Amino acid sequence: MEKPRELRVLPVDGVGEVRAGDRLDVVVNRALEACGIALRESDVLVVTSKIVSKAEGRVVAVDEADPEARTRLVLEQATTVLRRRDSLLITETSHGFVCANAGVDWSNTEPGTAVLLPENPDRSARGLRDRLAARFGLGTLGVVITDTVGRPWRRGLVDIAIGSAGFAPLLDLVGTEDGTGRELHVTEIALADEIAASAEIVCGKAWRRPVAVVRGIDITGEGSARELVRPPRDDLFR
Amino acid sequence: MEKPRELRVLPVDGVGEVRAGDRLDVVVNRALEACGIALRESDVLVVTSKIVSKAEGRVVAVDEADPEARTRLVLEQATTVLRRRDSLLITETSHGFVCANAGVDWSNTEPGTAVLLPENPDRSARGLRDRLAARFGLGTLGVVITDTVGRPWRRGLVDIAIGSAGFAPLLDLVGTEDGTGRELHVTEIALADEIAASAEIVCGKAWRRPVAVVRGIDITGEGSARELVRPPRDDLFR
Repeated sequence: MEKPRELRVLPVDGVGEVRAGDRLDVVVNRALEACGIALRESDVLVVTSKIVSKAEGRVVAVDEADPEARTRLVLEQATTVLRRRDSLLITETSHGFVCANAGVDWSNTEPGTAVLLPENPDRSARGLRDRLAARFGLGTLGVVITDTVGRPWRRGLVDIAIGSAGFAPLLDLVGTEDGTGRELHVTEIALADEIAASAEIVCGKAWRRPVAVVRGIDITGEGSARELVRPPRDDLFR
Repeated sequence: MEKPRELRVLPVDGVGEVRAGDRLDVVVNRALEACGIALRESDVLVVTSKIVSKAEGRVVAVDEADPEARTRLVLEQATTVLRRRDSLLITETSHGFVCANAGVDWSNTEPGTAVLLPENPDRSARGLRDRLAARFGLGTLGVVITDTVGRPWRRGLVDIAIGSAGFAPLLDLVGTEDGTGRELHVTEIALADEIAASAEIVCGKAWRRPVAVVRGIDITGEGSARELVRPPRDDLFR
């Protein structure tokens, strides 16, 4: 990977409301055109999982009068409950992600509904990547699908990559030397998570900006966000 | 905070080796000049804790022939050990950060030495902010001091903010409406951590780039990175 010269994160406005059955590549392409952004070699398109889920019809009805309905839905979506406090459940999802409430989301959706995580965010990312790469005639294009999560030990939420395509989401530094010529002990950087976090800064939570373009990284390789999941056996905080 | 138009992360090359007693504002200013970057209103200067520590003389000798010397040093720097596996200690530091090996670092330092975290990274950030804001005649300037950490459940390291000054590191969204007009349940975004992560993308671990400028965020308020530490009583993963 080449030393980046400058990183730019371009917000993509005008995506509008996404509905079940919408083709996300068409929606994104229309918004890019309206913003005057043409995707380039080595760009990374960042999309919130919310609109991926909506396009894929992952919206379900929830009886808001029933105080237990939300909890039941979360437990349906979770494979494991790691911790529980009051109505907050820290869970593992079928994708292997650990997050609050199995990623079920009640914000930015019609009252009486909830948005589930995409069934297979890596597959969704690959589909979007392939269609947009073809449309823009690109050999190298990254796609990251994000979700917003809390973290142990730290206040405040950040975005992470739950789906990715078109590049290696973990930057492997094995064999790289530090400034003093010694091999770096640090071996892997969670590049796709850092991309997700940088896009969140311009996308925000209240700005209806579910898409951004991150430009200036010399992305390489292939891989999926599944690789970012730490195998439970290696995890000291289960 | 206003909706950002575009985020730019500008790498600052030419910082060179930092030594105990160096004035970091002078070092940074010289590198900014060499890169042709003049700091602007609302810029955030991001600096790795490594060079802050070096400037502040937080480098200690470690007997590399003694296999226990590193562990002793880590235990000296830790207030609590949360988990231990082989030589890896997950610890809380005197600052309240939870990280591997109490933040003691053996990379990018002379053989036989280790770099400790800055004693008070928020104070270091304030000092740098005040001197650079005065030099550039700025009313609003942010500074973030970063460290590189692992995370539960996720592979790969990311940078987080361990010191900050000049803006509110947590973006409070209480009372903000989502796109459907309902109040957001999500209340706090870890803006300073997202800034740290975006800067890491251009700074890298092997590129000797300990400084970057993040431009395009309408930073507001005041605060310190200490606010990003989740109080232990609220933490489900201790």
